[in-house]
Amino acid sequence: MAFISLNSDEPGIRGLFLYRPETAGPLNELVEVLLVGDSTLSRGERELIAAYVSSLNECRFCHSTHAAIAAAHLDEGMPLVEQACFNPAAAPVSGKLRALMDLAGAVQRSGNAVTERHVTAARHAGATDREIHDTVLIAAAFCMFNRYVDGLATYAPADPTVYTERAQQAAGYIAGLAELQGQN
Amino acid sequence: MAFISLNSDEPGIRGLFLYRPETAGPLNELVEVLLVGDSTLSRGERELIAAYVSSLNECRFCHSTHAAIAAAHLDEGMPLVEQACFNPAAAPVSGKLRALMDLAGAVQRSGNAVTERHVTAARHAGATDREIHDTVLIAAAFCMFNRYVDGLATYAPADPTVYTERAQQAAGYIAGLAELQGQN
Repeated sequence: MAFISLNSDEPGIRGLFLYRPETAGPLNELVEVLLVGDSTLSRGERELIAAYVSSLNECRFCHSTHAAIAAAHLDEGMPLVEQACFNPAAAPVSGKLRALMDLAGAVQRSGNAVTERHVTAARHAGATDREIHDTVLIAAAFCMFNRYVDGLATYAPADPTVYTERAQQAAGYIAGLAELQGQN
Repeated sequence: MAFISLNSDEPGIRGLFLYRPETAGPLNELVEVLLVGDSTLSRGERELIAAYVSSLNECRFCHSTHAAIAAAHLDEGMPLVEQACFNPAAAPVSGKLRALMDLAGAVQRSGNAVTERHVTAARHAGATDREIHDTVLIAAAFCMFNRYVDGLATYAPADPTVYTERAQQAAGYIAGLAELQGQN
């Protein structure tokens, strides 16, 4: 049970979006730009970075949500997503994505844990400044979302089909928020 | 020097706002709601929580920025802000603010580090559900901002008057972003 009285039975961050719509707006606009908006990183690659950071922060709701969306956008599906999140060094991803995941992992530990080495490795693997910027901000943003969801002890369904079914419906975060608010 | 080539000489997050205006918008809307918008916590109390989390994350730019704004809004000024950030147990703040800072400190470590004890202590000291919610989200948001600023190695001026002068001009975050964008 969540630490505060929510005004719906929606799980995870969905219940928090309904509780405080004033912050739900900018939070969804932020992830829309980062994960859905124009980028030279694919939707699947960006969702995978979000899922990876959420797994490092041990946030079941966010990890399950973004792993399911990443799997829906990557040809290799959930087996690749799980391998990339839990054994990234051995996962069959591009050298660029591997370097960006390593950068995201440093951000998860601390902003000060990121060194020239992480950035140089990403650049040598082909990453642009914009891709490095967005990877750092995606990783930082999920350090926020994970803390928000677990710091208030929201409910995370154990059944993986809940996340898979929602991932298939998702047209984006702003549209998803409007749909959630329309249902409640 | 920052890890990526920025398009201005602005320090800290200001240079990142100019580099990526698409994310600057929602990021400033979020802190406007949390730190400036309607709340039963004072502006000074909320800025102090932001400064405290930024000090725990060892983010000089964000700590100096929000400590200066907190000091401008609290009667006791910078001496109280510094004591609260670096020795919170001994600082002469209300029991409610002390309990909310303790909650924010747990969020800084991890969402999963927050326990029923933190929330119960805040509630016993008079905190409402909305205040508990907003404290968790402020702390989580600064875990993002701190990682964003330091993860890209942006420049943080060492001269404290830079932060003090800007704190006195600040009419809020959305107005501040418009002013920054107008100057550049």
